[in-house]
Amino acid sequence: MPTPYSFTDDYSEGAHPEILRALLETNLVQQAAYGTDQFTAEAIARIQAQLGPGFAGDIHFVASGTLANLVSIAACLRPHEAVITAQSGHIVGREAGAIEATGHKLITVPAVDGKLTPAHVESALAANAHFPHMARPRLLYLSNATEIGTLYTLAELQALSALARQRGLLLFIDGARLGAALASPHNDVTLADIAALADLFWIGGTKAGALLGEAIVVCHPSLKPDFAIHIKQRGGLLAKGRLLGTQFKVLFGPAQAEAGDPAGADLLYTALARHANAMAAQLAAGIVAHGHALSARVETNQVFPILPDALITRLQERFSFHPWGPASEPQHSVIRLVTSWATVEGQVAGFLEALGAWPKR
Amino acid sequence: MPTPYSFTDDYSEGAHPEILRALLETNLVQQAAYGTDQFTAEAIARIQAQLGPGFAGDIHFVASGTLANLVSIAACLRPHEAVITAQSGHIVGREAGAIEATGHKLITVPAVDGKLTPAHVESALAANAHFPHMARPRLLYLSNATEIGTLYTLAELQALSALARQRGLLLFIDGARLGAALASPHNDVTLADIAALADLFWIGGTKAGALLGEAIVVCHPSLKPDFAIHIKQRGGLLAKGRLLGTQFKVLFGPAQAEAGDPAGADLLYTALARHANAMAAQLAAGIVAHGHALSARVETNQVFPILPDALITRLQERFSFHPWGPASEPQHSVIRLVTSWATVEGQVAGFLEALGAWPKR
Amino acid sequence: MPTPYSFTDDYSEGAHPEILRALLETNLVQQAAYGTDQFTAEAIARIQAQLGPGFAGDIHFVASGTLANLVSIAACLRPHEAVITAQSGHIVGREAGAIEATGHKLITVPAVDGKLTPAHVESALAANAHFPHMARPRLLYLSNATEIGTLYTLAELQALSALARQRGLLLFIDGARLGAALASPHNDVTLADIAALADLFWIGGTKAGALLGEAIVVCHPSLKPDFAIHIKQRGGLLAKGRLLGTQFKVLFGPAQAEAGDPAGADLLYTALARHANAMAAQLAAGIVAHGHALSARVETNQVFPILPDALITRLQERFSFHPWGPASEPQHSVIRLVTSWATVEGQVAGFLEALGAWPKR
Amino acid sequence: MPTPYSFTDDYSEGAHPEILRALLETNLVQQAAYGTDQFTAEAIARIQAQLGPGFAGDIHFVASGTLANLVSIAACLRPHEAVITAQSGHIVGREAGAIEATGHKLITVPAVDGKLTPAHVESALAANAHFPHMARPRLLYLSNATEIGTLYTLAELQALSALARQRGLLLFIDGARLGAALASPHNDVTLADIAALADLFWIGGTKAGALLGEAIVVCHPSLKPDFAIHIKQRGGLLAKGRLLGTQFKVLFGPAQAEAGDPAGADLLYTALARHANAMAAQLAAGIVAHGHALSARVETNQVFPILPDALITRLQERFSFHPWGPASEPQHSVIRLVTSWATVEGQVAGFLEALGAWPKR
Repeated sequence: MPTPYSFTDDYSEGAHPEILRALLETNLVQQAAYGTDQFTAEAIARIQAQLGPGFAGDIHFVASGTLANLVSIAACLRPHEAVITAQSGHIVGREAGAIEATGHKLITVPAVDGKLTPAHVESALAANAHFPHMARPRLLYLSNATEIGTLYTLAELQALSALARQRGLLLFIDGARLGAALASPHNDVTLADIAALADLFWIGGTKAGALLGEAIVVCHPSLKPDFAIHIKQRGGLLAKGRLLGTQFKVLFGPAQAEAGDPAGADLLYTALARHANAMAAQLAAGIVAHGHALSARVETNQVFPILPDALITRLQERFSFHPWGPASEPQHSVIRLVTSWATVEGQVAGFLEALGAWPKR
Repeated sequence: MPTPYSFTDDYSEGAHPEILRALLETNLVQQAAYGTDQFTAEAIARIQAQLGPGFAGDIHFVASGTLANLVSIAACLRPHEAVITAQSGHIVGREAGAIEATGHKLITVPAVDGKLTPAHVESALAANAHFPHMARPRLLYLSNATEIGTLYTLAELQALSALARQRGLLLFIDGARLGAALASPHNDVTLADIAALADLFWIGGTKAGALLGEAIVVCHPSLKPDFAIHIKQRGGLLAKGRLLGTQFKVLFGPAQAEAGDPAGADLLYTALARHANAMAAQLAAGIVAHGHALSARVETNQVFPILPDALITRLQERFSFHPWGPASEPQHSVIRLVTSWATVEGQVAGFLEALGAWPKR
Repeated sequence: MPTPYSFTDDYSEGAHPEILRALLETNLVQQAAYGTDQFTAEAIARIQAQLGPGFAGDIHFVASGTLANLVSIAACLRPHEAVITAQSGHIVGREAGAIEATGHKLITVPAVDGKLTPAHVESALAANAHFPHMARPRLLYLSNATEIGTLYTLAELQALSALARQRGLLLFIDGARLGAALASPHNDVTLADIAALADLFWIGGTKAGALLGEAIVVCHPSLKPDFAIHIKQRGGLLAKGRLLGTQFKVLFGPAQAEAGDPAGADLLYTALARHANAMAAQLAAGIVAHGHALSARVETNQVFPILPDALITRLQERFSFHPWGPASEPQHSVIRLVTSWATVEGQVAGFLEALGAWPKR
Repeated sequence: MPTPYSFTDDYSEGAHPEILRALLETNLVQQAAYGTDQFTAEAIARIQAQLGPGFAGDIHFVASGTLANLVSIAACLRPHEAVITAQSGHIVGREAGAIEATGHKLITVPAVDGKLTPAHVESALAANAHFPHMARPRLLYLSNATEIGTLYTLAELQALSALARQRGLLLFIDGARLGAALASPHNDVTLADIAALADLFWIGGTKAGALLGEAIVVCHPSLKPDFAIHIKQRGGLLAKGRLLGTQFKVLFGPAQAEAGDPAGADLLYTALARHANAMAAQLAAGIVAHGHALSARVETNQVFPILPDALITRLQERFSFHPWGPASEPQHSVIRLVTSWATVEGQVAGFLEALGAWPKR
C-alpha cells in the first residue's frame, strides 16, 4: 500500500527548489557570520522594498516561529507587563509556555472568528487595571492568518492599531502564515499596511516554502537598538546567518518563471502562497459540491470539512490529515486539510474523487 | 583586488556538498514534522551506534549552540541551582547572558590551559557552601575542544566525572567543536567515553560541515522525560526537523569517497574534522618553520601565532582572520587562524608563502 | 464627621495584643538570625503538634502571601511545568503576574462555588496533553477558604488529592484564610487532614492577627531539601526571623484567657478566626433579617450582601467596605464586608442598626 | 554558664523600643492597606525631607535587603542588560542567585578596599562590548557602607555617578548599612548627595534598629511609574504596610531623648548608627591598645581584629562572633565583630578586659 498523501500541514516537504538552488550556487562563497553576510543584506533590502517608502525599521531572521514570538515579546516587555491574546492564540496553547518562561503573563480573551477584537481588548484592560495588584497589559498579540485560517481586514487591523496607540499598547503580529493571508483573494492588506500599523511583526518562511526561518520586522524605533542581543540571548542567532538570508532573498525575489507571471510583478513568496490558497479553494469547492459542509470559512490554505466518520476512515487509507474534533451532527467529525506551496494538484483531484465515490446522502 | 581568503572561523561556507545533495534528493518526500521524520530517526540510530553498546540515552537536535546550551541547562537545573564553569567558558562571555536569562547563576573559576580542573571545582564548591545564602552548585560545564582549541584527555574527563558523581553534580559538555577534538591526533577520547562520563553533552554540526544544527545527547535517565518540551519551550523545535536529521544522518554516515578511506571506517563527521585539523597543523608547522612562535598548543583547528604587527597588516591584504590581542613582545600581536572542513589547501600554502616572503628576523 | 468604621478587609489593624506583648518581652534577648532562633523553633514545634503524629515535613516562615505562593511554586516546578488553578485564583489576577515571573504558565479553569473541581482538572489535563507542544500540568493550586469565602469539604479535598496522586500532580493549598476555614462551623477538615492530603500548603498569619507572616508547610519529602535556598533567593528570608517565629508561637499557643475557653483546648489562632466568623455570621443574619439577600453563602468571614444603591451610599457615611459589582436587580449592587479578629461587635450592631433604619421594601 | 554575648551581627535583637512603642500605640487604629496608610505617608515625608529640596523621587518600603535588591534591579533592566558589581558584592555571593533568578548577568570586578572603582568599571565595559554576543552592562551596583565596613567618599561617588551618566549606566546603591555610613566620623556624604548621584538606592532599616524593612528611593523619573507593581510581583507588598511605615516614621523622627541631643538635630536613625559606630571604635581602640592588629580600617560598625587562635578560643567562652578566616601570621586568625544600636557598652568593656587578661606578647 502506498504512503498516504499528506494534507496534515504546510511543512511536510523541504524547500522550494529555487531556494535549494540558491543555497547550492552560493555554498562555497565565504561569507561573514551571524547575519552580516551579503545574502542577508540583499534579503533585507528586498523585504524593505515591500514595506513602504518611508519604512525605517529593522529586519532580523530567526529559525522558528516560537523563537520569533518569544524573542519579540521578551524584547518588548518589562517584567511586570503582560500580553493580551485570543484564547486560541498560538502562544497560549501551542508553544509549551514559551512566553511565560520569559516571565510574562498572557491575558486571554475569546476569539471572534479566530480574531482579537477591540471590544475584548477593552474588557481585558478594564479587568486588569487594579494597580498595583495586576500585571500591566502592554502588548496585543494576534496572528494573521489566524489559527483557523481566517483573515484580518485592513479596517480591523486599523481599529486594533488605533486602540493600541491610544491605550499605550504595542501591537505585535505573528505572521507564521502571513504569506497565505497576503495572497488570499479575500485580503485587502499589504505588507506596507502592516508595517505602518504594527510595532513589531514577523513574516513566516517555514510555512511558505523555506527550509526554516522567519523574518522579524521591528517597526517601533525604541525596540530597534539591541534587538540583536535579545536574539543572541535566546539562542536565535545562527552562525551561518546566510542560510536564512539566502532563503528570504529568493522568496522575496521575482516569481515569473514559477507562476507564469509574465509581468514579473509577483514575489515568489506571494506566488507560492497563492498556489497553496488555490489548492485549498479547490478542495473546499469540491467538498461542498459533494454535499458536505465546512465548519469555517476558507480564506487561506486551511479547510475544515465536516464529514461522516466512516468516510473519514475510508479517506485515511489514501490521505493523511489532522482530526479536528467531533461535529454536532452524530457520527460526523471535523477534519483539517492544509495545503502548501508543494501541494500536488493531482492529489487534490484524487481526494475529491475519493470523496465523490462515497454515496451521496 | 580579490576578496581576502578567510581564516576567521569555521562557519564561513555553507554545508558539505554531500549534505546539500541529501537535502535535494529528499526534498519533496513528505515527512512528519517536529523531528518525528524518518531521516531524524536514521540520524539518531547512526549517532547511537557511536555511543557504546549499552547506551540508553536520548538524542535531540536543535539549531544553534546557544540553544543547545540554554535548553540543556534549563532542563537540568532547579531555580536555586548554579553552574560551575571556567571563566573562559562560552556561556560566560559569548552568549549574551543566555544562561542567566533562564535564571541560573554561573560560578566562574580560572581555566588551566583552557580547561576546568578538579581543584578549581573543589574550590568553587567550598566557596559556595554557605547554606541557605548561596545558590547551590549543581552542574559542571566544559567545552571539548576548549575555547582555545585544547583537548581534554580521557583521564581528565574521568577525574571530573568521578568528582561530579561524588559531589552530586551533573557533567555537561559543550561540543561545538567536538568533531575537531575527536579527530585530533592528540585525542584519546571516544564518543562512547563521553556518553559514559557525561550526563548530557552535545555534538556540534554548525562548525563541522552542517548548515546548522547540534545534536544533544541526554545520558542521565532522569533528564530524558519531557526534554522535548524544554526544546519546544525555548523555540528550538523546528517544524521541518528533517533539515537537522538529514544533515546528521549524512555526517554520521561513511566518508570513504570523501576522505580516501578505502576501509570505510571513517564517519564523514570525523573525516571533515580531520581535514580541518590537518590544515591547522600545516599552518602551525609552516609558521614555526618561518621562525614565529605560537601562543597556544595546536591540538585541533585553531592556530594562535604571534606575529609582527607590520606582517599582520601585510597578510590582511590577502587573508582575513581575527586579531586576538597584543603579544608581550613589542609591536607584535596574537592572531587567530581557524580552519574548517572547507579550508582550501592551496590557501594554506598561499598564507605560508606570504609569511615566508617577509624578511626573517 | 468621624472616620468610617472599616469592613474593607481583615488587615486594617495591627496585631493581636498578645503578639505585641511577646515581641516586647523578648525584644532585647539576643537571638540567632535567619530563622535559627529559639522562638521560631518553638513556633515550628507548636505547628507540628497540629499536623498529626506521623508528620515529617518542614515548616518555614515568609513575610507575605504572594511570597509564600511564588516561593512554593518556584520550588516545586521545573521550567516546562504548569499550574492548574481556578480562574478566580489569587495567583491569577491579584499577584501582578508573580507566578509567570518565575517562568510558569497558569492553566485556568472555571471555579464552581469558588472551588477547583476534579472534573475541571481532568478537562485541563486533557486539553494540555499535546506533547511536546504544551507545558506539562504539574501542580494543582487552590485556596481554602476560597476567594469568595467558601470552604472545601474533607471529601472534596480527598478527591482532589487522590486525583493529583493518580495523575502525578502536586497539590498546593494557599491558606491566606485557612484560619477562618478551620474555625468555621461548616468545616470538617483539620490541619492534620491538610498535611496528609497536600504536598505543600501555607497557614496565613497576616489575615489572622499577625503583623505579617505566613507559615509554609512542606509535606512532600522531595521538596524539603534546599527549600530554604528558594526562600532566600526570592528575598523571603528575614534577618530577624524571630519576628515571624514569635508571632506564630503566640498564634499557635493556648487562647483560654482570650476566648473564654476554660478547657484551654483552643489555639489563639482558632479563637481569633472564630471571632471573625461569628461577626460575619451576625452581619449575615441581620442583613437577611432586614430583608436583603446575599450573593454567596457565608461560611467564613466574608459577607456579600445585595443592597439598594441608595442604601449603600447611606451606609458609606459611617462604614467603609469594598464595592463588589452590580447586582441583577436594577439599582442594586453587591458589596463585600470582611470581618476579622479585631472586629468590634458594637460596630456590627451599628451597621445592622443603620440597615434597619432604611425603609423596608 | 551564661549565654555568650553576641557580636555576631547587627540584627540579634528586636527593634528599638521607640519603634515598638509606636506600633503598640497605633495598633488598633484602622488603616488602609498596602502602603496607603497615614503612617507610611508620614514616613515618606520625613525621609523626603532628608533628600534635598528639589527631590522628586518616590519611596517604597519592602521587608528585606534581598527583596530591595532584586525588585530594584528587576525593575531597572531589560532582559539583555547586566549588572557591574564588585566580586565581593552582597548580590554576588550572599543572595542565593537572586539577581540571576530575575534573568540578569552579574559582571564582577575586583573590589578595591571593598569598593567599586571607575577604572574597573571601564575595564568591564571594554570587556563586554562585543555586540551582539554579550549582555549589555547597564547598572552599577555598590554598597555603602561596603561589605567590609568601609565608606565611599563623596568624591568617589561623584566619579562613579559621572561615569555612569556618561556611559548610559544606572547607579544603584545598596544601603543595608547606609545608616552606619552616614553616621561615621569619616563620612562626608549626605542622604541628599546620594539622592542626587544615584538613580535608585535603599536605606536599610533591618540593621538600623527596625524589626525589618528597607526604604527604596527611586530617583530616576523613568523608573517611578509602575514601581509598585514590581514590588507586588516579587511578593514585596505587605498587606499591613503600616508595619514598615510606622518604623521608618520613628527612625526618621527626632532622637533627642535618646541620644542626649538637646538641639534635637539628630534623627533617631542617625543616633542609633552613631552608637553602633562608637561601640566599634571603642572595640578597635582597645584591641589595638592591647597590641593586636586590625585587618581592615574601622570606619563604621565592623571590626576585623587579628588574634591568636588560643585567645579566640578563650574569648568564645564569653562572646560569640563570626570567624573570618586565617591570618598570615601562624596560629592567628581574623574574626569579625559587629556592633549595633543595641550593643551594651559594658559588654564592650568586658570584651576588652578579657582581651587584656591575655598575656601580652
